[in-house]
Amino acid sequence: MPHGGKRVQRSGSGKEAQDARREAASLPKLVLSAYSLSEVVCLATGVYSPLSGFLRERAYRSVVETMRLPDGLVFPLPVVLPVSREAGAALRPGGEAALVREDGEPFGLIRGVEVFERDPSWEARNVFGTEDPAHPGVGRLLSEPTTLVGGEISVFSPPEPEFPEIALTPKEVRAAIASRGWKTVAAFQTRNPLHRAHEHLLRCALEVCDGLLLSPLMGETKSDDVPAAVRLRTYQAIVGTYLPQERVLIASFPAAMRYAGPREAIFHALCRKNFGATHLIVGRDHAGVGTFYGPREAQEIFERFTAEELGVVPLKFEPAFFCTRCQGMASAKTCPHPDEDHVSLSGTKLRATLREGRLPPPEVTRPEVARILMEALE
Amino acid sequence: MPHGGKRVQRSGSGKEAQDARREAASLPKLVLSAYSLSEVVCLATGVYSPLSGFLRERAYRSVVETMRLPDGLVFPLPVVLPVSREAGAALRPGGEAALVREDGEPFGLIRGVEVFERDPSWEARNVFGTEDPAHPGVGRLLSEPTTLVGGEISVFSPPEPEFPEIALTPKEVRAAIASRGWKTVAAFQTRNPLHRAHEHLLRCALEVCDGLLLSPLMGETKSDDVPAAVRLRTYQAIVGTYLPQERVLIASFPAAMRYAGPREAIFHALCRKNFGATHLIVGRDHAGVGTFYGPREAQEIFERFTAEELGVVPLKFEPAFFCTRCQGMASAKTCPHPDEDHVSLSGTKLRATLREGRLPPPEVTRPEVARILMEALE
Repeated sequence: MPHGGKRVQRSGSGKEAQDARREAASLPKLVLSAYSLSEVVCLATGVYSPLSGFLRERAYRSVVETMRLPDGLVFPLPVVLPVSREAGAALRPGGEAALVREDGEPFGLIRGVEVFERDPSWEARNVFGTEDPAHPGVGRLLSEPTTLVGGEISVFSPPEPEFPEIALTPKEVRAAIASRGWKTVAAFQTRNPLHRAHEHLLRCALEVCDGLLLSPLMGETKSDDVPAAVRLRTYQAIVGTYLPQERVLIASFPAAMRYAGPREAIFHALCRKNFGATHLIVGRDHAGVGTFYGPREAQEIFERFTAEELGVVPLKFEPAFFCTRCQGMASAKTCPHPDEDHVSLSGTKLRATLREGRLPPPEVTRPEVARILMEALE
Repeated sequence: MPHGGKRVQRSGSGKEAQDARREAASLPKLVLSAYSLSEVVCLATGVYSPLSGFLRERAYRSVVETMRLPDGLVFPLPVVLPVSREAGAALRPGGEAALVREDGEPFGLIRGVEVFERDPSWEARNVFGTEDPAHPGVGRLLSEPTTLVGGEISVFSPPEPEFPEIALTPKEVRAAIASRGWKTVAAFQTRNPLHRAHEHLLRCALEVCDGLLLSPLMGETKSDDVPAAVRLRTYQAIVGTYLPQERVLIASFPAAMRYAGPREAIFHALCRKNFGATHLIVGRDHAGVGTFYGPREAQEIFERFTAEELGVVPLKFEPAFFCTRCQGMASAKTCPHPDEDHVSLSGTKLRATLREGRLPPPEVTRPEVARILMEALE
């Protein structure tokens, strides 16, 4: 079951879409950033079920303060549409507006609009636990307009996905899971290339679940993260070569990173439930950045909710490494041997190795993956 | 929470035990086999909670037919006390009897007795799915008297455990789990030495749970199984050397094997819940024998009960092997490579290798374990 009990679908076609397009031509226009556009895609395809639009003020305040919608349903991050003060002032309360791409092309509608002001400091403190503008989520929030528009959305002209081969909607992923007969599905949220340490989590999760949903976040990330196209090639290099093709689905997660740590871990869990996942892999400092969150905060937050109200089980992992005495991948939970027995490489050393055109140890990175990263660095 | 909501403890000491011992002297005597004695130990220490004695007829019929006690609580195997017809005839309905060891020593009481007859064929068909006397569980059932005695038990002189260093009661294991702060505990039922394939299941389970309860069945097994004392040494060789001591508890499971396949998998799950486990590792043909059960039957039976009525989550595993291309342990779920890439050895070949005094590949059996098995074969 999707979060809240029913799957949202706000993307139409045919006659209905034609009518909406005609209607949009005569409405006030809201030009959406790439970030807001990806939010609309998530809303329209049910990634954010039960949300069917951008939060209005009451729901916004409830989510930010309590991590719940006004009806009590868990929802940890605000999904909002910031617009310029002028654009907001041009809207009639309860009325409609056209959603327009940066190139001027209308692609959807927002209905029953409500315009309200956010308090960025208050929102940042609650959502990110900090007001420090060095935090990329806070930085973005502070750069946005403070005027928000709430209302139900619909899309008549969905944007072309950047990676069409993995652009599966929650509906399509659920159908794929059903056709494969999987009863338990572990989702893996990632914004990194796939090293052995990550592969170990995938393997452990797959041993205890029927299938794996490799769910790379393909929306906006920090500029120093590895580009999505390169990351995708590393996923494709592993699946089929080191993991059975028929046990793994790769489906992009079209949302942007918030770097909201614990709150975003819950968010990732609920969104992946909407895709049909029953479990979410939660590693150290999931969705964290720098030292803003404790390494286990994103795992511990799951204890604040009942299994029923989340409906998705966290699989909590420690950092993994290859141990020469265990003769396999392990973590501090499964390996009793000292650091000297572990094959590991810091991110900095790994990048230096790759930049020099040398393969890192296969215990750290599969050669197939290393070659892709080398090329990307050239 | 123990199964049914409260932990049973029917083993007393001090004044109460003295009174019971005095009382026993004047009561009719029931001499118990080693098998029945181990059942009393399980009942008295709460391994079989909520049972506080041997089943009376109504509960017996309900368990055999429906896998549930008359109040609806799941309980998949009958726990019964077979006695000779003469011994049964000497009992007064509702009265008491002394429980006596084979050496004549009284050690407990049974109260509120009810004497009834079992139908061995009906019981065998329901519990084991077969009447074939070649099935060791059916064979034992057919060799037992058909007169059963139900009633609450209590123990005033608990038998000395055969392996005192791992003879922890459910109460003691629960206390150890609490003191280690584990919130999730995976139990591993085993009646085999610990090879790499088993170790892989332990490692995967430990990556997703806080701790491991290594729960070797130390009661009666088939005569061709590896002796309990040898098995125990292999467990002790792995824990501390290949798994962190502080993440693993070894506590014997004092019950005998039934070889009842799927029903026994549920039984093992509920008993381990009584020890404080939250998860049970369920491999292929768990508690099976020969070809009496399908390889997945013991995993599939868990789907017939809700998560709430079991209260323990099965971790379902496929057979594991070392894959030279994956460079690690894997299973058909996690490895896409053909058999040629897998290091494996049949049980027969493994025994032959050990008998010749040669170490099997370390990918199959850790050398520390192989040496223990070699010695035992000498």
